[in-house]
Amino acid sequence: MSDPACPACAGAWPDPGHRIAGLSLTVAYLHEDQFLPGWTILVLRRHATELWELTPDERAELLEEVTLVARALDEAYGAAKLNYALLGNQIPHVHWHLVPRRPDDPAPREAPWSIAHAPRRLGPAELEASLAELRLRLPH
Amino acid sequence: MSDPACPACAGAWPDPGHRIAGLSLTVAYLHEDQFLPGWTILVLRRHATELWELTPDERAELLEEVTLVARALDEAYGAAKLNYALLGNQIPHVHWHLVPRRPDDPAPREAPWSIAHAPRRLGPAELEASLAELRLRLPH
Repeated sequence: MSDPACPACAGAWPDPGHRIAGLSLTVAYLHEDQFLPGWTILVLRRHATELWELTPDERAELLEEVTLVARALDEAYGAAKLNYALLGNQIPHVHWHLVPRRPDDPAPREAPWSIAHAPRRLGPAELEASLAELRLRLPH
Repeated sequence: MSDPACPACAGAWPDPGHRIAGLSLTVAYLHEDQFLPGWTILVLRRHATELWELTPDERAELLEEVTLVARALDEAYGAAKLNYALLGNQIPHVHWHLVPRRPDDPAPREAPWSIAHAPRRLGPAELEASLAELRLRLPH
């Protein structure tokens, strides 16, 4: 169940170098833009674009994996709140944005998409340290 | 399990006049700003702020209700894509934004929160018609 025209199915997105861990139904990646530290993308392994295309068992397991990764981000980044979003407006393949919002957040009342900012891409050492920190908290 | 300081627990938010339907764990309301038609808020009946505060059974049922309402919105509004988001940056009580993105969407690649717009509040007749249309598709 993959779509040859889908960059998530093709493995071209998210950047494989940002892979954190693989769970049963999903794979977690650090988002390329880390202006909100810990922003993670959790991608469904199979192709689907809406929740109603999944079975009830898949939905239940999916939300368990969302919760497991969110909890790991909460602990690793000392979040005041987690944001969870399944949008798919640019890449419709089911993926969740899991965004820890820390006490030093630049705009704590705003959605992650409404905060003007310069993109922040981690350097290689910082990326590896972030991935390693999260892998300690997740099966992979 | 309610928080006396929480506007969702107090019934002050969302506007009770926008109530669509009550499900097992959640209540659905039309969002006050209908600039994206069909934007719905699905509020957990009990107080919690993060998914990991729920039991696995609650999470599974919650996602079934999210999916049921999303499907109803898809059908009623002819959506090209649904957006699903649990943010809580202003009111941390667990609630989902379920936003049908129609083919005539003003900014189909953008998140609902990054689209500059004038708020659009429905008049009484349009509000009642929208609520009635959705109630046909949901238990209540």
